[in-house]
Amino acid sequence: MPSSDNGDRPAAIALREHLAELADLGAVTALLGWDRETMMPERGAAPRGELTATLERLAHARAVDPVLGELIEAATVEAQGPGAEPDDAPIARIARRDRDRATRIPSELVVAIAHATAEALPAWTRAREESDFALFRPHLERQVELRREVAACFPEAAHPYDALLDAYEPGATTASLRDVFARLRAGLVPLVEAIGERPEPPPLAGPFAIDGQRALALEMARAMGFEDDAWRIDDAVHPFAQAVARTDVRVTARWDESDFSGIFAVLHEVGHGLYEAGIDPALDRTTLGTGVSFGVHESQSRTWENQVGRSLAFWEHWYPRARERFGRSLADVELGDFHRSINIVHPSLIRVEADEATYALHVILRFELEVALIEGTLAVADVPAAWNERMRDMLGIEVPDDRRGCLQDIHWSCGELGYFPTYALGNIIAGQLWAAARAQLPGLDAALAAGDCAPLRDWLRRNVHVHGRRLDPSELIERATGSALDPDPLLDYLREKYTALYDL
Amino acid sequence: MPSSDNGDRPAAIALREHLAELADLGAVTALLGWDRETMMPERGAAPRGELTATLERLAHARAVDPVLGELIEAATVEAQGPGAEPDDAPIARIARRDRDRATRIPSELVVAIAHATAEALPAWTRAREESDFALFRPHLERQVELRREVAACFPEAAHPYDALLDAYEPGATTASLRDVFARLRAGLVPLVEAIGERPEPPPLAGPFAIDGQRALALEMARAMGFEDDAWRIDDAVHPFAQAVARTDVRVTARWDESDFSGIFAVLHEVGHGLYEAGIDPALDRTTLGTGVSFGVHESQSRTWENQVGRSLAFWEHWYPRARERFGRSLADVELGDFHRSINIVHPSLIRVEADEATYALHVILRFELEVALIEGTLAVADVPAAWNERMRDMLGIEVPDDRRGCLQDIHWSCGELGYFPTYALGNIIAGQLWAAARAQLPGLDAALAAGDCAPLRDWLRRNVHVHGRRLDPSELIERATGSALDPDPLLDYLREKYTALYDL
Repeated sequence: MPSSDNGDRPAAIALREHLAELADLGAVTALLGWDRETMMPERGAAPRGELTATLERLAHARAVDPVLGELIEAATVEAQGPGAEPDDAPIARIARRDRDRATRIPSELVVAIAHATAEALPAWTRAREESDFALFRPHLERQVELRREVAACFPEAAHPYDALLDAYEPGATTASLRDVFARLRAGLVPLVEAIGERPEPPPLAGPFAIDGQRALALEMARAMGFEDDAWRIDDAVHPFAQAVARTDVRVTARWDESDFSGIFAVLHEVGHGLYEAGIDPALDRTTLGTGVSFGVHESQSRTWENQVGRSLAFWEHWYPRARERFGRSLADVELGDFHRSINIVHPSLIRVEADEATYALHVILRFELEVALIEGTLAVADVPAAWNERMRDMLGIEVPDDRRGCLQDIHWSCGELGYFPTYALGNIIAGQLWAAARAQLPGLDAALAAGDCAPLRDWLRRNVHVHGRRLDPSELIERATGSALDPDPLLDYLREKYTALYDL
Repeated sequence: MPSSDNGDRPAAIALREHLAELADLGAVTALLGWDRETMMPERGAAPRGELTATLERLAHARAVDPVLGELIEAATVEAQGPGAEPDDAPIARIARRDRDRATRIPSELVVAIAHATAEALPAWTRAREESDFALFRPHLERQVELRREVAACFPEAAHPYDALLDAYEPGATTASLRDVFARLRAGLVPLVEAIGERPEPPPLAGPFAIDGQRALALEMARAMGFEDDAWRIDDAVHPFAQAVARTDVRVTARWDESDFSGIFAVLHEVGHGLYEAGIDPALDRTTLGTGVSFGVHESQSRTWENQVGRSLAFWEHWYPRARERFGRSLADVELGDFHRSINIVHPSLIRVEADEATYALHVILRFELEVALIEGTLAVADVPAAWNERMRDMLGIEVPDDRRGCLQDIHWSCGELGYFPTYALGNIIAGQLWAAARAQLPGLDAALAAGDCAPLRDWLRRNVHVHGRRLDPSELIERATGSALDPDPLLDYLREKYTALYDL
């Protein structure tokens, strides 16, 4: 047993204290964000912006504090000593990485990005409303320019886009994503084409009263691991999940009477919440006590939304309950029909409405454009044409206007280049985890069909959640699934599922 | 016009920036508190405590920062110069006072109080449940001892209790409160006795469906100045109001189907909210941009709850609306009966349930005990006997157990000695403001009877709200009412009202 006498580990203790303050500021900022999207009166927005900016400034000052640098050095040395505790080394390692990133990007650049975003957001909103890319173009040019400056702060990166990716997905590289996405695309495009040649199942007719949807979704959430004394669900225009603490998890949803999209959003967001709630309590208020990357986080939400939530086994338990609530609208819909209706594949224009098979193609398109913008091989002015050409190539559809094309997402107006790929990484990792869980849990389908989500949740907790940021994404995936990042399990799962559903 | 060229006022600008950060930390802490009482899942409590402690530590470090001291000195000199803006001097003056108070109390003492409170709160809860003062006694002894240490940090105070008062009511002194409270007590005790000799009106029978109460209270709140895009009302166990910003005001309420106490609580809390919402926008994020004292704050809530909310004029407009909602329960109750029922005077054991005439007597009792505890003329062990004796003297009732006696309030377990007097000050100041408003607004009753709260709200805004902390409480009262703190207008108002209602 390592010694737990604090006298042996003065730097580790002092480092933890400094990091706890940073973690607290992050949690407070998270709560302010949750409140803004769910509770805040409209005219609270301007003062809320000041509060958030102040918190971010305080956190930034602490993140680049030279004292922190010294503590990290001392704690790193100390962690090799005989009195160290096992988490001392990873805490110092991740703290060093975070601080390095924070100090490399000059404050003036951070401020310039904040200003550019403040100007770009209303311009993007108007450009999208009017479907007029020209209104957004100068702002996107500015954001691309600023992100190239960010990339230049990391001259050792093999590709400038790697430096942007790293903020969302530590360790991911442009080269590796190009390879993985090429394989994914090569598998998805013919699958989607094959499905397109088969007759399309009828969609659900509805209506499904929203109160009933809320109640059903809450029952499902509880089965997944939602605890009434540690979680809540509220409405938000753009659903998200936010953990203020492991035992204070806020999930949000948006409801549509005409379909079950709100229920799938809850499964998705509860998946995110379970990740944060399942992290080892020993990591509370350390730099390791959050999800390890956006991609791994998205794998958790996607697993519950898709692999579980669109499976026949899951609905064997839940469909009778749905029928009890929505008797009239589901009276003539048998379980098999329902299962087909929630798995319709249909190439479409809008990413956030895309189905499980076409979703990643929307992401690959964005990744390719972002890389080209950062490389300088694509001019911002040429984005609409490049977008529309790829939509034709990959999904076989024509983009009628930029509103439903390159202006649909908010990310670029915030300068968030490097974020999109993590959505597809989430699908890929979910595919790998699902294959591993099924192999290791022979009774998984039967449990889901009996309404029992605990075996899968506990498997994910042991293999993913509990680690927090102790393991890097690649190490986590390797340990949990026995292989490196690999799109094949996702492709195998989709092929098997759609072959059965569409009789391919 | 004073120059607005920032170049003339470098210290004022730098001081405002420092204070803005402090104001932001205060607003964030306020939001965390609101969330804790209204939204937070139960198990979020422990991590929330960490977040709040971190924010308070950061704010304290800023409040005692020597840099702030230097800025205050420089800004004070600068404020006398030709380029100064009118608010520069009061901002520097109040910043100096706040900083002086923060620096005088050593950090170790602040920490000791926090620890003592953390231990005292559960002990008080248990002591109250079991009605066993002995369980609470050592904790109260510790809190009194610590507050005497706080008082000792202000050796220039004429009375040690003055130093405690000052935290809640700047400028108030033990000597002046003794005088004012003696006059108030001398007026109230015979009034309550005279009322006690008259037959008591029947109370409302109810029930009043809570949904209907919520809707009615919201209509009233809107008439008072509640704006849907800048305010919200939620439920809380102990109602309170909290402004995150002037345009983000959070009011809470608790509902009881058997009476209208929830509606009166909303009038009370909206009164608090109107104060914060009505402060001059020029004072946003300065040290002047909040209410000036607990007493003046309470005067705003009491004015709306009592002088307005229990008046015949107000209900001339609202009673027909209440009857529409609660037809069956109010069918046989005429407006006059209703008015009498919401103005029943009946000496009782519990302060928070006390009526308008007896309320201040509960407060005077606590003030007298607190002063004696701090002077050392009353031992903590003798608190129950002293309490019960005063209840007999002032209200003529026997206290059956300490649960309904000296263990009923949470304040002492938090070490908050000096707070209680502000509740009675609120009543006194409300009496003075009401008399002044009536004198200056001859159409006030007619407006209220027509459902128009704007004349009173605007008068209060001009005379109280807008100033923030620019004027000290005594100066504010003097300017608004033409006289110093004076219990007579409150006594006159009560005598007039109860003489009519009880046919004295």
